Amino acid sequence: MSANLRVLIVGGVACGPKTAARLKRIMPEAEITMIEKGAMVSYGACGLPYYVEGTFSNINALTHTPAGVSRTPEFFRTWKGFQTLTRTEAVAIDREAKQVHVRCLDSAEEKKLPYDKLVLATGGEAFRPPIPGMDLDHVWFMTHPDDAASMVQTIKERGLQKAVLVGAGFIGLEMAEALINKGLDVTMVEMMDQIMPGAIDEDIARMSQIHLEDNDVELVLGERVTALEGDGHVQRVVTDHQSIEADLVVIGVGTRPNDRLAREAGLVCDGGITINEYGQTSDPDIYAGGDCVRNFFVNRLVGERLFVPLGSTANKHGRVIANHIAGRPTPFSGIGCSSIVRAFDFTIGRTGLTERMATEMNLDVAVTTWSGQDKPHYMEGSRLFAIKMIASRRDRKVLGVQVAGMGDGAKRLDAAASAIYFGATLDQLADIDFGYAPPYSPPIDPLAVCAHVLTNKLDGLAAGIGPLQAKALMDAGECLLLDVRIEDEAKMEWIPHTRMVHIPLDQLRERFHELPRDELILTYCKVSMRGYEAQRILNAQGFDNIKFIEGGVAAWPFETAMPGL
Amino acid sequence: MSANLRVLIVGGVACGPKTAARLKRIMPEAEITMIEKGAMVSYGACGLPYYVEGTFSNINALTHTPAGVSRTPEFFRTWKGFQTLTRTEAVAIDREAKQVHVRCLDSAEEKKLPYDKLVLATGGEAFRPPIPGMDLDHVWFMTHPDDAASMVQTIKERGLQKAVLVGAGFIGLEMAEALINKGLDVTMVEMMDQIMPGAIDEDIARMSQIHLEDNDVELVLGERVTALEGDGHVQRVVTDHQSIEADLVVIGVGTRPNDRLAREAGLVCDGGITINEYGQTSDPDIYAGGDCVRNFFVNRLVGERLFVPLGSTANKHGRVIANHIAGRPTPFSGIGCSSIVRAFDFTIGRTGLTERMATEMNLDVAVTTWSGQDKPHYMEGSRLFAIKMIASRRDRKVLGVQVAGMGDGAKRLDAAASAIYFGATLDQLADIDFGYAPPYSPPIDPLAVCAHVLTNKLDGLAAGIGPLQAKALMDAGECLLLDVRIEDEAKMEWIPHTRMVHIPLDQLRERFHELPRDELILTYCKVSMRGYEAQRILNAQGFDNIKFIEGGVAAWPFETAMPGL
Repeated sequence: MSANLRVLIVGGVACGPKTAARLKRIMPEAEITMIEKGAMVSYGACGLPYYVEGTFSNINALTHTPAGVSRTPEFFRTWKGFQTLTRTEAVAIDREAKQVHVRCLDSAEEKKLPYDKLVLATGGEAFRPPIPGMDLDHVWFMTHPDDAASMVQTIKERGLQKAVLVGAGFIGLEMAEALINKGLDVTMVEMMDQIMPGAIDEDIARMSQIHLEDNDVELVLGERVTALEGDGHVQRVVTDHQSIEADLVVIGVGTRPNDRLAREAGLVCDGGITINEYGQTSDPDIYAGGDCVRNFFVNRLVGERLFVPLGSTANKHGRVIANHIAGRPTPFSGIGCSSIVRAFDFTIGRTGLTERMATEMNLDVAVTTWSGQDKPHYMEGSRLFAIKMIASRRDRKVLGVQVAGMGDGAKRLDAAASAIYFGATLDQLADIDFGYAPPYSPPIDPLAVCAHVLTNKLDGLAAGIGPLQAKALMDAGECLLLDVRIEDEAKMEWIPHTRMVHIPLDQLRERFHELPRDELILTYCKVSMRGYEAQRILNAQGFDNIKFIEGGVAAWPFETAMPGL
Repeated sequence: MSANLRVLIVGGVACGPKTAARLKRIMPEAEITMIEKGAMVSYGACGLPYYVEGTFSNINALTHTPAGVSRTPEFFRTWKGFQTLTRTEAVAIDREAKQVHVRCLDSAEEKKLPYDKLVLATGGEAFRPPIPGMDLDHVWFMTHPDDAASMVQTIKERGLQKAVLVGAGFIGLEMAEALINKGLDVTMVEMMDQIMPGAIDEDIARMSQIHLEDNDVELVLGERVTALEGDGHVQRVVTDHQSIEADLVVIGVGTRPNDRLAREAGLVCDGGITINEYGQTSDPDIYAGGDCVRNFFVNRLVGERLFVPLGSTANKHGRVIANHIAGRPTPFSGIGCSSIVRAFDFTIGRTGLTERMATEMNLDVAVTTWSGQDKPHYMEGSRLFAIKMIASRRDRKVLGVQVAGMGDGAKRLDAAASAIYFGATLDQLADIDFGYAPPYSPPIDPLAVCAHVLTNKLDGLAAGIGPLQAKALMDAGECLLLDVRIEDEAKMEWIPHTRMVHIPLDQLRERFHELPRDELILTYCKVSMRGYEAQRILNAQGFDNIKFIEGGVAAWPFETAMPGL
């Protein structure tokens, strides 16, 4: 390898600078040039909603290192040792000559930059719905610091009040929190029947939707936006059902890989640039990483590659690419489909397969939902949350985990991501020695309890039923509801149904004869534990058509009833 | 198996009730009796320090279910379906007749309880140092709700002010926080030269000690308590070096397994009752679990069994025992040596092997310490913490992880515990798809960054040196210190040394000739990243005797210098 290996990197946000910095550290003799179309490099785009929210007041913080140094081209030259050209667009790749034609956007000058190794880190771009009115003022995408800065300034100067968010994905949820906390009215319009349709299952979504509504977000689900209307600036969002007043609109309906350059150069692309485990494209001298590539999923059950643009993956790509260029190959194992978002006081996250994905793939899975507190109930800051777990019936491997609620779901999500990465079975997941002390968790970690419940279900001990299926049976009038909580709890909040019986668990061993033997009984309590115990007690008395509602009242994703309401 | 299987359980705190409740759910026909020497059953002993601290005001919360129901014998009878006898002591086991001789402590009545299966969940007892004065008033162990209740009441009634904690383990740290927050003066005396000597390494301990001292805990390390003195109630704690005034004393010098009953019955014991993976003792009809048994360590490098009493493990034992009795065996894989404690704003934790254990076992390991923020620096609530990681040189498997600091170390500890359980290599740990969003983590999770640093070290790229070794070299006058931070940072706080040079990283490529080539240079910055980059820059200029101080100023476990001090 030449002492003067020339490495050209196209794209200066996440994967690009990571590749360059890593490569320079391990291969100081490399001559590295990074070009970026925009004026800024290496900005933390994921932080934009928090700037809008007011979490921090200087948007330049997004380009600062933790030590407060601004990541400018000068920074990269003096601190990191590589050259950066901003406002420089890559026009085309000449693979034969190993050159990239670039255009300087300020001077319109064009030139050819040679490379021995080329890295495409061209990122993704926000999908632009093909509807009228997208060019109106006060319509924002949230992809660049300029977007966030102009939004904050315009809200302030023009007193914008009514925000409509188009799309209920990650950007939508983060912006809902940001704008509500900023004092605006927020309506969120989503084409599908649930929030985060690609990321989480309907039951977890419904729980989260209740939390959004409790925080004054107006949810409009199952409606397609057909036009934005207004006079100069946006005034209305029109859907296939209604017209919604709007002072500002945020479009967050997904990202598309920016793979034009690669496609035009004849590199294999398929909804994103195709790469191998070292980040190489179909041309071994050209690498690609970050939001412009399609990733493989670590779970071998999923044959297909997935397009999941994330800053965490982009940084991993950068390291893998740098290592391979430097002759120190470290294959990337793929993505585990982990994602997490904060929406007000809720943490919503997912890793691995969702139940919907598993169903679409026709996998034989078992599923359960647990709910409960994240710490012992006597500790301050103990909070409720729910875990949904999906496992393969064949080998009892954990395939996916979702979390939602006020409790610390982030910790359980990462522990689950780790376990799933290694092919954990339910028994193994429950056996992991998690750190236990009252400020951090109950003696049996919620993740272990959830794995236990699912094991019990697979073993035919726990006859749990998911809340969606329970609701369907209730709506069809095909079941009796048995509340086994104590009197005080049962009076505060309950699951409404036409036929309900209340027998506290401690009386059930005496009073079971009050229950009919010829119909389906659904038991429940606050979280599901006593509901399960009630099922077991009734089973022991010969009742064989009993199920408990998983997650209980705490995870019930529909309206509950309260006194006086 | 008989429909009337009689199961007798000795011990009613954690493993006992868990075994009984689980068994009754899966084997409703079992006749289960649980006996307990004390008057209370199923109390959360781990919560005692938080009651003292005032986190909750009703000590009965420790025996309540999350729904607020008190776990009394009546509760266990009506809700869980098994019998509980309190104030009932097991005197001896007649293995041949399959009976346990018990004594009712109130009536002094003795009787024999028959069993088909016996479960010993006799717990541990606080070690009582063999020194004079242990019977004085105002000397507490912190093992039972009565201890916590009487301490709180006595502090209030008698206005106790000076607390001396004997032992700097988990109880000591939790009580230090509790009593300082209650307004008392706290001195902690530890025989060893560091806090938590059995749990964490010296460097992590030293970082934590600085935090304790910052919170006004007076630390007395390396002194042995030889006597407690006083007149009726304790007035002084005497060590081999000094006498310390005391109004109250808490003894927290370890727990011993309460295995007398098992030993006297001829069961194999070795520093705790010996059990197999199903919880069976050397008598297959007698099980044991919880703090009275010795556990095997999941890491196969460690041949020896370990005595680690924890509520989390006790609950796992309970389930394993119940499953085996019910004919549904689920082997327990052992403990991973995970533990965690909160001390004021610090989370201190460990999983797997410590460096000291690895050294004692003569393992060929590599070690590093990372420090940094737990979230992007621009997010509110972003906090510093440190991760120490130990890996095997042979196969690069992660053997242990320790965390200390204000940041969210608990999440990383559990993710690491999960990875270590599955035999993760450093590359695998860094590849796990952790949930990324700014409220939860930086794009590259600290655990992955730490694994990267250690990989770099093993690959000969990163020449990191631990702070203890750095300090030893500094004290011996054998190195020059090179601070590569920017001017403003370098003026605020630095690592004091007789020979120091300050060259900001961005000037190093120009100014390296100012540095001597004939001696060891230790570089550092705030956390270690720029220190590492400086090392690489100097390596590229032919300097070959450069190391960076791992963890930088942020993890420096000795006094730092500040202007005016």
